[in-house]
Amino acid sequence: MRVRVAIMAAAASLAMAGPVWAKTPSAEARAYRQAHEGAIVTQLVDLARVPSVAAQPAGLHEAANMLADQLKRRGFVTRLLQGGEGAPKVVFGQLDTPGAKRTVTFYAHYDGQPVTPSQWASDPFVPVMRSGPLSTKPVDVDWKTAKAPLDPEWRLFGRGVSDDKASIVAFLAAFDALKAAGRKPSVNIRIFWEGEEEAGSPHLEALLKANAPLLASDLWLIGDGPVHQSRGRTVYFGARGMIGFDAMIYGPVRPVHDGHYGNWVPNPAALAASLIAEMRGEDGAIRIPGIAEKVRPLTEGERAAVAALPPVEAGLRKELEIGRSEASDGLTASTLRPALNIRGIRSGQVGAAANNAIPVDAEISIDFRLVPDLTPADVQRSTEDFLTAKGWTIVREAPDAAMRQAHPKIIKIEWEPGYPGLRTDMNLPVSRAVLKAVERSSGKPALSLPMMGGSVPIYLFEDVLKAPVIGLPIVNHDNSQHAPNENLRLQNLWDGIETYAALMADLDW
Amino acid sequence: MRVRVAIMAAAASLAMAGPVWAKTPSAEARAYRQAHEGAIVTQLVDLARVPSVAAQPAGLHEAANMLADQLKRRGFVTRLLQGGEGAPKVVFGQLDTPGAKRTVTFYAHYDGQPVTPSQWASDPFVPVMRSGPLSTKPVDVDWKTAKAPLDPEWRLFGRGVSDDKASIVAFLAAFDALKAAGRKPSVNIRIFWEGEEEAGSPHLEALLKANAPLLASDLWLIGDGPVHQSRGRTVYFGARGMIGFDAMIYGPVRPVHDGHYGNWVPNPAALAASLIAEMRGEDGAIRIPGIAEKVRPLTEGERAAVAALPPVEAGLRKELEIGRSEASDGLTASTLRPALNIRGIRSGQVGAAANNAIPVDAEISIDFRLVPDLTPADVQRSTEDFLTAKGWTIVREAPDAAMRQAHPKIIKIEWEPGYPGLRTDMNLPVSRAVLKAVERSSGKPALSLPMMGGSVPIYLFEDVLKAPVIGLPIVNHDNSQHAPNENLRLQNLWDGIETYAALMADLDW
Repeated sequence: MRVRVAIMAAAASLAMAGPVWAKTPSAEARAYRQAHEGAIVTQLVDLARVPSVAAQPAGLHEAANMLADQLKRRGFVTRLLQGGEGAPKVVFGQLDTPGAKRTVTFYAHYDGQPVTPSQWASDPFVPVMRSGPLSTKPVDVDWKTAKAPLDPEWRLFGRGVSDDKASIVAFLAAFDALKAAGRKPSVNIRIFWEGEEEAGSPHLEALLKANAPLLASDLWLIGDGPVHQSRGRTVYFGARGMIGFDAMIYGPVRPVHDGHYGNWVPNPAALAASLIAEMRGEDGAIRIPGIAEKVRPLTEGERAAVAALPPVEAGLRKELEIGRSEASDGLTASTLRPALNIRGIRSGQVGAAANNAIPVDAEISIDFRLVPDLTPADVQRSTEDFLTAKGWTIVREAPDAAMRQAHPKIIKIEWEPGYPGLRTDMNLPVSRAVLKAVERSSGKPALSLPMMGGSVPIYLFEDVLKAPVIGLPIVNHDNSQHAPNENLRLQNLWDGIETYAALMADLDW
Repeated sequence: MRVRVAIMAAAASLAMAGPVWAKTPSAEARAYRQAHEGAIVTQLVDLARVPSVAAQPAGLHEAANMLADQLKRRGFVTRLLQGGEGAPKVVFGQLDTPGAKRTVTFYAHYDGQPVTPSQWASDPFVPVMRSGPLSTKPVDVDWKTAKAPLDPEWRLFGRGVSDDKASIVAFLAAFDALKAAGRKPSVNIRIFWEGEEEAGSPHLEALLKANAPLLASDLWLIGDGPVHQSRGRTVYFGARGMIGFDAMIYGPVRPVHDGHYGNWVPNPAALAASLIAEMRGEDGAIRIPGIAEKVRPLTEGERAAVAALPPVEAGLRKELEIGRSEASDGLTASTLRPALNIRGIRSGQVGAAANNAIPVDAEISIDFRLVPDLTPADVQRSTEDFLTAKGWTIVREAPDAAMRQAHPKIIKIEWEPGYPGLRTDMNLPVSRAVLKAVERSSGKPALSLPMMGGSVPIYLFEDVLKAPVIGLPIVNHDNSQHAPNENLRLQNLWDGIETYAALMADLDW
């Protein structure tokens, strides 16, 4: 409740602050952006052209060098940090301001999710500007020759434009804006842009531990994730953790005719389906014992913050063309619980390619989203206990003939690296200061989420570096993040630049 | 029981018939085959090179013309029949023998299942001879330059070599053998080789009705399906029917981040899995009401024939590397019940391509195998009633936005053409005569199956033409029919030629 009162008070004070507004860092950022829209978009396009995805180490390398160069040109002391042999590098930057009492680290990741180019409307690494989201059947736009101002509803399409290259470019543009206005940052700035977030950040912990003194900071601001669906400027105070696995279920060693063998030879697609149905209800409830039980309850303040969010469900149902939701207690409440997601399933063939055959295997990809106090180890143990109890033999390598003949149900499980979730106390002085800066940047109350549904390994910053962690998303919710046709709405980039300016030069606690 | 007694009596009489054996049509066929192995394999290779699969109408056309030409050259009156505009043609042939009192129609299909070439060890339409099944890591064999006799364990790999081009080539070779021996057929011969069996024979009924007088016959012999797993010469007295469908289940209209939306946006892969698990138990039992109930019980004779089959389950478990079977009452008993097979499922992405996203849809391919008295219409009605009862809205076309927003669970169902199963009475005079001829061809009791697990639309011959229908399979059970790397074991082709010779020249009732 105290949070809500604070928001109201801030809004009231802003309403009376008219003349001051023109002099804020955010206002300076806006003026700069209005004069440099083409250059800012160019910077994002140049960065998005670099294929910095896990399957392309050269692209990751190139992006890291490009970003380090951008920081150097702006006067940062820059280093490329590595958490392990062959791991994508972290771009670290440092810029101190004499007299600043606080140090703030701006986190983002420059790697993107894998792509399946055939599913994209255009090359994922040749960014294209369109007049709107794909659902509106937009036209391609030649933004380079367009007259300023660019239409803020235009969208740039390309892998990583939203997740997270927008945050990186917003930071750079905000920094340039402040410099152009002759304004010094109010805090010492650290940059931490990593390159393996979409792969689960397997080397991050080691890197933080090895570089703890260098990374000392009073606040980590996480430039990842989308703003609230109502499009208001958003701050989140935590994120769900995650862990995933790929499972292979075995049928006959060669496909067999399903007429001659159906009912007798085990069908791996049917086994996979049964397993999924046993693990997860149609309402999304996780049926694996030991998972839903390990959940830290929300505080009163967190519940109040959720209740204060504008309702978005009806609009989302329309936008996503869905006739129901899994859980019935609203989107935000749903994403404050653990989730078991089926990312994909494949067995045999469908449609015109279907054969009348029993498939040889079935593959499932699953991720779990975790909340405090549910750890990845809890999920691994609970899931494997559950599988064993259901009669599955768990293997780590493809089983040989003797193994297959000896066990009725074999599942190969390959766990991905995982990490736990985090919620930062919304009542800390630093939490209130961030909300206040964001509110001053827009003149409206910020939307405050106890935890983002998506995952970033931010628990580590708290765990290893003992620093508070707060999320600062800027991109549109409907950005097709992690999917084909990822895109960024220009107005979100413009708003983000103003938010970043506020957090560099208008943050005080 | 009477069948079993008849088998025993036949075996006993054969044991004493030594000297007669040397003069049988089968013995003549063997001698001819031993002298012409290369030419017979060449004939099969030439036919298997023609890509006669549903996706390639030109290949179907070419195969029909090639086969009609083969029959003409052997003195058959030949016609190409068509059941509908654009349908693949039936190769019909007629050869009467003065004095013959019975007319026998030899059925086979020259079309093959669709192929996914990337899953094959070699081009599906460039037949390759190998030293054994793929599981034995065989070597490629240059059979053209090999010295006779060819190793009978060699296998020819290619789409259709087993299903059914082997039966066609066995017929032609047997016919040539009898001619070379100067022996006349004992029956009037009709040929009926169709080209859309793997597509469910959608035009067959109309064609039979339109050509009923031309197709009048005392027996239809079905050259399709594999022999019993024990490799003995086999006769089957029926086949399961079938009907299948492809289903599309809808999620959000665009993929959404499963962290930000998991638990709230419905996951179509999870819905598909739940649906499969509701329709089918892990033991293969169909849970859709109204299907398992409509099954004609086996007669005493049918049960006795099943009991007389050599046990094959332990060998098959080893061969297929499976640690369990779905049903526990044996393979043959399992395939005498209706089955619900999952041919394939696809949703989202798996493995390295997996995204942390909720997929937009899930597609399932299913077929049902039917036994008398369960009709395709029964299955369609029961399945759709079941879906409706489970809250699904069934559509025939992709739903529009308004439709998707209005209904919680939408499934698009596309039914394939289907047909019922059939069991011919094993005690008819014609049934006993066929068993006797097959037994005389090998000197051993024939294996007799009340019904084959696989499907051929043979009910139509009984239904429309009022003719008895008996199955005459020749190919090896482990032929990867309907799957990649379809193959034919040479000994099965050799045995098949002898069986065909017996049924052309040693059949009498």
